[in-house]
Amino acid sequence: MKGLWLENQQLIFRDDLPVPFVGDGEALIKVHLAGICATDLEMLKGYYPFTGIPGHEFVGEVVKTDRMQDLVGKRVVGEINIPCGACDQCLRGNRDHCRERKVLGIKTQNGVFAEFFTIPEKNLHVVPDGVNDEMAVFTEPLAAALEIQQQVHIHPEDHVLLVGAGRLGQLIAQTLAICPCRFHAATRYPTQSELLLNKGINTIDEDQTPMGMMDVVIEATGSPQGFALARKAVRPGGVMVIKSTYKGDLHVNMSSIVVDEITVIGSRCGPFSPALRLLEGNLVDPTPLIDSIFEIESSLAAFEQATKPGVYKVLIKF
Amino acid sequence: MKGLWLENQQLIFRDDLPVPFVGDGEALIKVHLAGICATDLEMLKGYYPFTGIPGHEFVGEVVKTDRMQDLVGKRVVGEINIPCGACDQCLRGNRDHCRERKVLGIKTQNGVFAEFFTIPEKNLHVVPDGVNDEMAVFTEPLAAALEIQQQVHIHPEDHVLLVGAGRLGQLIAQTLAICPCRFHAATRYPTQSELLLNKGINTIDEDQTPMGMMDVVIEATGSPQGFALARKAVRPGGVMVIKSTYKGDLHVNMSSIVVDEITVIGSRCGPFSPALRLLEGNLVDPTPLIDSIFEIESSLAAFEQATKPGVYKVLIKF
Repeated sequence: MKGLWLENQQLIFRDDLPVPFVGDGEALIKVHLAGICATDLEMLKGYYPFTGIPGHEFVGEVVKTDRMQDLVGKRVVGEINIPCGACDQCLRGNRDHCRERKVLGIKTQNGVFAEFFTIPEKNLHVVPDGVNDEMAVFTEPLAAALEIQQQVHIHPEDHVLLVGAGRLGQLIAQTLAICPCRFHAATRYPTQSELLLNKGINTIDEDQTPMGMMDVVIEATGSPQGFALARKAVRPGGVMVIKSTYKGDLHVNMSSIVVDEITVIGSRCGPFSPALRLLEGNLVDPTPLIDSIFEIESSLAAFEQATKPGVYKVLIKF
Repeated sequence: MKGLWLENQQLIFRDDLPVPFVGDGEALIKVHLAGICATDLEMLKGYYPFTGIPGHEFVGEVVKTDRMQDLVGKRVVGEINIPCGACDQCLRGNRDHCRERKVLGIKTQNGVFAEFFTIPEKNLHVVPDGVNDEMAVFTEPLAAALEIQQQVHIHPEDHVLLVGAGRLGQLIAQTLAICPCRFHAATRYPTQSELLLNKGINTIDEDQTPMGMMDVVIEATGSPQGFALARKAVRPGGVMVIKSTYKGDLHVNMSSIVVDEITVIGSRCGPFSPALRLLEGNLVDPTPLIDSIFEIESSLAAFEQATKPGVYKVLIKF
């Protein structure tokens, strides 16, 4: 089958990959669309020492299953963490933090940048009819955006600020703009503001961000400057949600976090079901974020396009 | 009156200080006992640019009031933050984070290392008869220890670790040891372990701390090494409560905090009423932490004693 292969930080296109064997409790998925995410780009820089087929954002069709026969033929998306089910974290229900987890296209488990891949049946979510492939392929990052509300109680009276309106930030903005809270998005580039304004979301220029007034600040830039802005913007007693990873350590004035009793929350993967509900209800529309769609044969060009500044989502079609 | 005066990071003993004037809504307090805290020692190093009478841990007697006449003659302790009552933080009930606050003996307001001082009547708490002065003088740091439980839901099933069993850590340990949680105190020095063991609190050597297993970790060392140990000990999805301030910035691997979805909570002043209840019920006994008691005339020697390593609480008597 055709697909991408990552080895020694080198990405190559291959047409000789074997269709994977369906193991215990697994399903074989024929990929329709796959999305390139910041993590995929970072893997090329050696962020994770992974050898195999990368990719974790997908929508596809179930071709074969081990046990759950009624899934065959269904259009699905899937959760990327594959837990062991036996460690202390799994047993407490904290499966996304399984100590022995595989992660689709990131750790131990081959991913979705290929015509077919396998995934545990339990990880799958059937896509509602009203949600087309171009929408459904955003389920995973949209779920990550919703993890914020899974972790933090956003009150209707809260002033909530997003710093960083990039790939993930745009989805975060859409999920918070439909909350009754007072939502603000701090933007750096006109293209970021434009996408938000098209959704009726008001933006403020980063330089005009009010200081020390926000109940909740979401940092989604992945830059020390973004973290610093988020820290300045949060009020004493407020919450910072960190959605991005950073290159190297951050220098943090922890004393001021103690004196101001700030809560800093790391936030990663989120719940798929509410993401699909928002898509089905047209409460979130990620499709304006699509920059381009490449055929699998041109997937190396797709990666090149995805690294360009200001490009949101590049998709690969099968 | 006699008292200590801080100016240009120099502490001097004076016997010519004026007894303060009782302002609107204030009470005049005759100090019985005052405690030297880490913040006081840091102020000598220029941590806060304060000129005046330092000190904020006290127990004393109300001599005169502006409005609340029934307080006169009562034995009291008092909250150290003096809020404006008018800013957005005060109006939301977040008075300890008032934007214009004075802080007793730390910011704008003269403190308790003198025979008399004034404080808003509203800040006072009457000390129950069963709580003697040597216990009551610990109310403020005990309240700071209880701020942890005010901020974080400690579940009965939780593994909770304290890193740093110094002045504040010993009080934190006593407040958590009476919770149904599984509490562990990591200690560095035999004297720390001894004080805890006398209270029936089990300790583990810092080097033997299990990694990645704790639901909640409290960091009370104020050292980068302590923070690093706390970070290693917390489980993915767990909570770190930071009770100490640090010299300079900390270097934090924020990416791992994101991936592991750790919550980091800054924690400062806490509630006085439950602290007094614990003292009254003999559920916490801080008196073994008393190293020595100095007369006000020897208060400079008291400060010298307080800076010695391994010394817990030094008190000044009036």
